[in-house]
Amino acid sequence: MVAHIITIGDEILNGQTLNTNAAFIGDQLANIQVQVNKTSVIGDDHDDIMSEFKNCWAKNDLLIVTGGLGPTHDDITRNCIVKFFKTELIQSDDVLDDIRQIFQKRGRDVRKINEAQALVPKISKVIRNHVGTAPGIWIEKENKIFIAMPGVPYEMHAMMHSFVIPNLIDKLKDLPNVQKSVTLESTGIPESFLFEKLGDISELLDGAKMAFLPSQIGVRLRITVNEKTEEDASNKLSEIEQKIRSKAGRYIFGRDGEKLEEVVGRILHERGLKIAVAESCTGGYLSNLFTNISGSSNYFERGVVAYGNASKVEILKVDEDTISEYGTVSLEVAKQMAEGIKSISGTDIGLSITGIMGPTGATEGKPLGLVYIGLCDEEVCTAKKFTFGEDRILNKQRTAQAALEIVRRHLLGISFDD
Amino acid sequence: MVAHIITIGDEILNGQTLNTNAAFIGDQLANIQVQVNKTSVIGDDHDDIMSEFKNCWAKNDLLIVTGGLGPTHDDITRNCIVKFFKTELIQSDDVLDDIRQIFQKRGRDVRKINEAQALVPKISKVIRNHVGTAPGIWIEKENKIFIAMPGVPYEMHAMMHSFVIPNLIDKLKDLPNVQKSVTLESTGIPESFLFEKLGDISELLDGAKMAFLPSQIGVRLRITVNEKTEEDASNKLSEIEQKIRSKAGRYIFGRDGEKLEEVVGRILHERGLKIAVAESCTGGYLSNLFTNISGSSNYFERGVVAYGNASKVEILKVDEDTISEYGTVSLEVAKQMAEGIKSISGTDIGLSITGIMGPTGATEGKPLGLVYIGLCDEEVCTAKKFTFGEDRILNKQRTAQAALEIVRRHLLGISFDD
Repeated sequence: MVAHIITIGDEILNGQTLNTNAAFIGDQLANIQVQVNKTSVIGDDHDDIMSEFKNCWAKNDLLIVTGGLGPTHDDITRNCIVKFFKTELIQSDDVLDDIRQIFQKRGRDVRKINEAQALVPKISKVIRNHVGTAPGIWIEKENKIFIAMPGVPYEMHAMMHSFVIPNLIDKLKDLPNVQKSVTLESTGIPESFLFEKLGDISELLDGAKMAFLPSQIGVRLRITVNEKTEEDASNKLSEIEQKIRSKAGRYIFGRDGEKLEEVVGRILHERGLKIAVAESCTGGYLSNLFTNISGSSNYFERGVVAYGNASKVEILKVDEDTISEYGTVSLEVAKQMAEGIKSISGTDIGLSITGIMGPTGATEGKPLGLVYIGLCDEEVCTAKKFTFGEDRILNKQRTAQAALEIVRRHLLGISFDD
Repeated sequence: MVAHIITIGDEILNGQTLNTNAAFIGDQLANIQVQVNKTSVIGDDHDDIMSEFKNCWAKNDLLIVTGGLGPTHDDITRNCIVKFFKTELIQSDDVLDDIRQIFQKRGRDVRKINEAQALVPKISKVIRNHVGTAPGIWIEKENKIFIAMPGVPYEMHAMMHSFVIPNLIDKLKDLPNVQKSVTLESTGIPESFLFEKLGDISELLDGAKMAFLPSQIGVRLRITVNEKTEEDASNKLSEIEQKIRSKAGRYIFGRDGEKLEEVVGRILHERGLKIAVAESCTGGYLSNLFTNISGSSNYFERGVVAYGNASKVEILKVDEDTISEYGTVSLEVAKQMAEGIKSISGTDIGLSITGIMGPTGATEGKPLGLVYIGLCDEEVCTAKKFTFGEDRILNKQRTAQAALEIVRRHLLGISFDD
């Protein structure tokens, strides 16, 4: 089954909104081995929509469209669908009920323009929407499937989980070949160094595919195999993974989209350890990463965003003389912050960050991107120096990732020396 | 000038990586009035790349490609370009110097596979890369422009700013019509209610275009006019903006991508006020938003991520009896947290958040998504209740946005009563 995803919306074309929808759908389809060959984005324009429907319907088995199903005047996807499939609109009582319930739940009166959203193409199955007002549309014709969903991400996600994926799986009973993928998540090593460490890639892969996906917080390695049976595919995949780990295992912290904060959280939880965080320049970014993980209250005790020096002294008990002597951004202050947050929280580990994120704040001998990360537990109290770049947001991300990696390596006993 | 953006990479198709590049380029082109009619994403596949080059080159004046220029085996864009334009690769000494310098700066030895990146298509102008190793490619042929840049976002961004946009502006001297846009940023009102408040849209717009762009933190209104002169366009735009503001002004906090944390930060800075933040359930997300803004140290004093109850009592001086009587997630605790953070920080304003983000943690009478936001200054100490949804990350985002909006409305004297 070959698929094409169309995203409709001027706001995507002009970059006002990120196309997270195509990514989400691509990921969901990859999981059930439906191959997305191409995705496209077009504007809220009748002629563009009609011509894209025509082209893509001809070339694919599955066409998924998002966007333009809302209640306002600029939403024209539904009318284009009606025209493309030469059908008409009829009222769905189920959808009308859903819409009324949504408004009731929010304690607001239902609007006429929302009631009009209960009109759906006659030849379609309705995909119910329990978190918003626009229903989704599922049409089967000429042995192909056409799906339209609202552009609001969480509404579309709910429809994918509850309706689209289960129904597609149902259609996909007998697959010829088994394709399987794994993604290894690495951090702390640049792409070209990782490439070199892996040696002869074609020998390593033996016909499989591998992509290097670099970002500011690490390089992801995606390996894809295509074999006759599920078992063959699994075996080949784990063979390749083992070879890679034997060559660059220390940099690999997880698989298949795992985040470093999840991995670190899991190790802390398994060992019954608690951590507290004192951040200066990252301003809460690291605490936010920790607490994005459900269940983090089991190991994340507290965070202090000690942005001004007063809070470093008052809350974290950093010595004022140390600040005067070495400066706020120094190995010594990082250590004292880690020691301080550990001691006031009564946790097993104290983790600290002090640095200069930019775009301003550099001084003689202390460039933008200079960061010290401190870690203290019962046995050690140490800090490590990093020099990142000049972009404030990227620096926050890189710094937080480095801090998490310091915790991971500390807990697993992996050294930073090559 | 009509443009098409092609993003190359399996990782985009299968949703492993978000296509931020097309969004960034679309935004940059919109700013210089180059219209992106369509964007597409294709895999790292020779035939797909060649056929997309052919189609898009025929239909557009400007073709921008990102991805597949890296040093590893899966990067095939450069070879496809050479083949498509029937040219050859030659070594660029400038690029070779750039690459050697990048490695020197990082204190690492240059790799052979990186040196090979100095080979560029003979008919191209090179777009230098000062933050990475892959050069960009600029080709002019048949009165059209072809641009290829690396897929790593910050490398591409730097090339757009330093080379692509200035050179495109140079090519765009005489434009026939003037298109101008403004986006009004609103929060705290659902799309259909905002739509209704605006009344007769076609009367309001009088031929201009408007899009409603809803997200979990607000609705953005993008208005686009097309007029003979710059002055006509500006006048029409500001006329429409004024009409909208007269109808729904209280919900509009900014324009053109301004973030609420910027707007709040600016008001605080202008008034010489300092703020401190005590977060429980949002776990640092709000502090992180504040400190994403360069210069936030002028008004953001500190944050406390009081995740466990101990830290609420120890650092923020919340009364243990209040917690036992009303529970951690309560109006009373929110007020005490705000009072506490204000008092220990010596700031003008204390802002607090306590709530249940999900997916677990709901209790009898306290559902998932229940949040209290407290605000104390010299004159008032108040808290407000919200009920958001069940998704942890969305709840964090909505809660932080609501907290910022509480500060904005408080400072500007805008009531929450309709």
